Amino acid sequence: MRPLIHPSIDDVTLEGILHALADPVRAAIYAQLAVSDCAATCSTFVNVIDREIPKSTLSQHFRALREAGLVRSERAGVEMRNVSRCKEIEQRFPGLLPAILKSYAVEASERARATRRKPARKKTRSA
Amino acid sequence: MRPLIHPSIDDVTLEGILHALADPVRAAIYAQLAVSDCAATCSTFVNVIDREIPKSTLSQHFRALREAGLVRSERAGVEMRNVSRCKEIEQRFPGLLPAILKSYAVEASERARATRRKPARKKTRSA
Repeated sequence: MRPLIHPSIDDVTLEGILHALADPVRAAIYAQLAVSDCAATCSTFVNVIDREIPKSTLSQHFRALREAGLVRSERAGVEMRNVSRCKEIEQRFPGLLPAILKSYAVEASERARATRRKPARKKTRSA
Repeated sequence: MRPLIHPSIDDVTLEGILHALADPVRAAIYAQLAVSDCAATCSTFVNVIDREIPKSTLSQHFRALREAGLVRSERAGVEMRNVSRCKEIEQRFPGLLPAILKSYAVEASERARATRRKPARKKTRSA
């Protein structure tokens, strides 16, 4: 079984964090982890941002988050338990993660407003 | 001559901003632009972060910043003049850019401290 790689907080780079969070799915996963107190398993996230995500893709997202230093993962039987490392990162880069997550929330509310404004067109049956 | 592409502020995405700034050279260029009041040309940045950068690479960095919506460029004869769009972005994603730039400053000061701690070893001449 491959070992799980967790960089020490001193080896975490801003470049790595921005790259990992430049993906809306990863940012959504991270946002959920950051507000949850208990460890979350991959299966909690299969419907993140209203889109079904294959389990293998999710594993890759968690790996990217882990290697960027954003989450800490632990094997528990056949599952993987993940917790956010937000406290460590907040200490090193104060205000960074809250600002990114807040900006994603801005985008999500803009999207929701736009969807409300444009109701789905009724399908007309062609003869 | 290829037209310069500037997304409207509503089409600027957080994903695009994070991806563009996940490169330390681009972040350094952007940080310099954001604090400068007047338009800056590419040649101002040839020694950004203590490393000489070829002009063609710089052009690519400016293109990435422009297409992410971070800078506005204008041709002036053979030169390109660039200004930061930080005010527009601050309005859409409050606090995001200051948090990222502050985090890069944290990394830069850590690097400077580490360099002071490890002075370059004197070369010993082998006979």
